[in-house]
Amino acid sequence: VVAPHGVDAPGPEVHGACQAARERAVEVILVGDEARLREELERDEAAHARTYRGKVTLHHASEVIAMEDHPGSAFKSKKDSSMRVAFDMVASGEGDAVVSAGNSGAMLACGLFLMKRVAGLERPGIAGLCPTKDGSFCVVLDMGANTDPKPSTLAQFGVLGAVYARKMLGKLRPRVAVLSNGEEQTKGTPLTREAHRLLAASAGDDFEFAGYAEGRDFWGGGLDVVVTDGFTGNIALKTYEGAVRACFEILEQEVRKSAAMKLAALALKPALRAVKRRLEPDEVGGAVLLGLDGVAVISHGRSSGKAMKNAIVGAERLLEARILEELTAALARQRRAWEPAAASEAEG
Amino acid sequence: VVAPHGVDAPGPEVHGACQAARERAVEVILVGDEARLREELERDEAAHARTYRGKVTLHHASEVIAMEDHPGSAFKSKKDSSMRVAFDMVASGEGDAVVSAGNSGAMLACGLFLMKRVAGLERPGIAGLCPTKDGSFCVVLDMGANTDPKPSTLAQFGVLGAVYARKMLGKLRPRVAVLSNGEEQTKGTPLTREAHRLLAASAGDDFEFAGYAEGRDFWGGGLDVVVTDGFTGNIALKTYEGAVRACFEILEQEVRKSAAMKLAALALKPALRAVKRRLEPDEVGGAVLLGLDGVAVISHGRSSGKAMKNAIVGAERLLEARILEELTAALARQRRAWEPAAASEAEG
Repeated sequence: VVAPHGVDAPGPEVHGACQAARERAVEVILVGDEARLREELERDEAAHARTYRGKVTLHHASEVIAMEDHPGSAFKSKKDSSMRVAFDMVASGEGDAVVSAGNSGAMLACGLFLMKRVAGLERPGIAGLCPTKDGSFCVVLDMGANTDPKPSTLAQFGVLGAVYARKMLGKLRPRVAVLSNGEEQTKGTPLTREAHRLLAASAGDDFEFAGYAEGRDFWGGGLDVVVTDGFTGNIALKTYEGAVRACFEILEQEVRKSAAMKLAALALKPALRAVKRRLEPDEVGGAVLLGLDGVAVISHGRSSGKAMKNAIVGAERLLEARILEELTAALARQRRAWEPAAASEAEG
Repeated sequence: VVAPHGVDAPGPEVHGACQAARERAVEVILVGDEARLREELERDEAAHARTYRGKVTLHHASEVIAMEDHPGSAFKSKKDSSMRVAFDMVASGEGDAVVSAGNSGAMLACGLFLMKRVAGLERPGIAGLCPTKDGSFCVVLDMGANTDPKPSTLAQFGVLGAVYARKMLGKLRPRVAVLSNGEEQTKGTPLTREAHRLLAASAGDDFEFAGYAEGRDFWGGGLDVVVTDGFTGNIALKTYEGAVRACFEILEQEVRKSAAMKLAALALKPALRAVKRRLEPDEVGGAVLLGLDGVAVISHGRSSGKAMKNAIVGAERLLEARILEELTAALARQRRAWEPAAASEAEG
C-alpha cells in the first residue's frame, strides 16, 4: 500500500509503483486523490508497453497529512488521510506493508495507533542505511522517531538494528556501536554512557558490541549498526548526504574551468556514476520503521520514481525475511542478559 | 605558543611551527619534552635552507594531557603539562595565543581556569568551519565544549559565530541558524526550540536569523553560522569529514578497475585535488575556542605539519582582527534585545 506524500507527489509514487509491478511479482495499492492518481497512471501506461493491469490499483482518500502537520494531532483529525488509510488497510489485512515519503512523525503515530508493537519493545525506531567501505551498509537508528529516548530504548535499537543487519544485509554477528562525540568512554552524554553499559552487558550471539563510534566511522569503521537518538541520527545522515553532494558540486565547478578537464571528466563518467550509485539515497530507497508488528517503509521526501520503486521492493524483501518473529526473540534474549547485570549492580 | 598533542606529536607541530616561521612574521614557542622537540627541530633545520633562528623557541614541560584523560582532573593534577603551561604563558603575557591538537575538553578547562571569559558570556564554545558552496565557510559551534548547553548559551553562540564570520570571513550580516532534525518549527528539541525563540528575538544588525537548518544545509544552505550543542556539532562535522573520505575512496576503487579509468583520473587530477583542498580539514587548520579573553586554536588530532601551520596562521589572524572587544559589545546588544521579549512574555 503506497500513500503518496513526497514533495512531487504523486508522480514519483505512481511511476515507482508501476515500475515495481512491471519488474517484480508485487501488487501495489495507491492511496490518495483518485483522480490525480488515475491521471498519472494513464501517463505511465502511455509511456510503457508492458502491462501491469490489475497489479496497480487505486484506493481513494480525501485528505493528506502535510510535512508541517503535528504528527499526533494530524493522525487524530485527518481520519481519511492517505497515510492513515494505508495503515488501516495493512492493519485490517487488506495490504501487507505501507510505503510513504510522508511526515515520518505521522507515520510513527499511525504505526503506534494502528499496528501493534513487537512484544517487549519500548519504542519503535526509524532505521536508515549509510553506505560503508566494504560495499555494504551500516544500519543507523534512530533517524528521527525519538528525539529524547531512554538509554534502554537505545540499547533495544541495537537489537533491532542487529536483526535487520542479519536478515537484510547478511551479517552473521553484526557489530553494534553507540554514536558519540569521541571514542573514549569519558565522552558522550548520560544517555550514551548508560546505553553503552546496557549494550556491553547484553552483547552475545545476537551482536558484538563495538563501543562508541564517531561521525567519521559510518563509512570506514567496520560497523553494521550505529544507535543514537533521533535528533542526532537525523542530522548525521543528512550531513552525510550534504557532504556527498558537496563533493560532486565542487568537482563539477572545477571541471567546468577547462576543456581538458571536461574531456577527462567525460572519460571518468562511469567511475563517477558508480560513486553516486553507492552513496545516493535514491538507491537505498527508504528508511524502515522498525519494531512495529508490520512493515512500514519511509522513503525519502525528495524521492524519485526509482527511489519509490526501491522502497517498494525493500518492503517486499522485509516481508519475505519475516523479521518480526526474530525481533521478538532477540529482544527477550537481551532483557534476560541485562537484568542480572542490573540486579548485581543494585546489590553492589 | 604551541603545545604538541597530536597523534603523531611532536613531528607535525615542529614542522608546522617552522613553516609558519619561515613564511610569516610570527614567533612560535614550542612547549613540551625539550629533548624530543630539539630533535625534531634539528631534523627540520637539516631539511630546509631558509633560517628561522630565534623565531622558533623551546620551553620545557614534563607532562602531557592524554586524549583519554578526564579534562577537569587532568588540568588539576598535571600542573606541568604542556597544555597548561602554554595557557599559563599566554595568561601571563609571555605568549599571545595557544595552538594545540590536544584533548579539547582539557583545552576548555585550561582556558576557563587560566584565561578570563568575555564579559557577559555563559560558556565559551568551540567553533569549527565547514566549507560551503559559495567557496567560503560556515561557522559551526559548538563542536564539543558543551554537550548539555542551555538555550541561552546556544543563542550566545549565534553571536560568537556571527562576530567570527564578520571578522574572519568578511560576512557583513551573517546568516545564523539552529541545527535541527527538520526545517519545520515543530521539529527539534526543547533546547533548539527555545534557542530558536531567543535568536529570533535578538536578530538585528549583528546577524540575520535563518531559523532551523538541517544537516544537508551546511554545504548549500547559504548559512554563515550554525549553532548546536557540542555533542551534535562534533558528530555532524566528523560525519561530514567521513562522507568526503567515502567519496574519494569509492572513486579510487572504481578507477582502479580499468586502465582507461586510471588514465582519465590522471587527467582529472587537478580538479580532484581542488575538491580535496576545499573539503579537507588540513586546509582549515583548526577550530577556535571562542569566548575566552585570549586566542586558543584547537587543531585536528590527526593534524599534518601543514594543518599545524595553518592553525598557527589562523591564531595570528584572530589576534590581528581583535575580535574580543567586538564579542563583548555584540553580546551586550543581544542581551538588551532579548530581555524585553522575556519580560513581555512573563507578563503575558
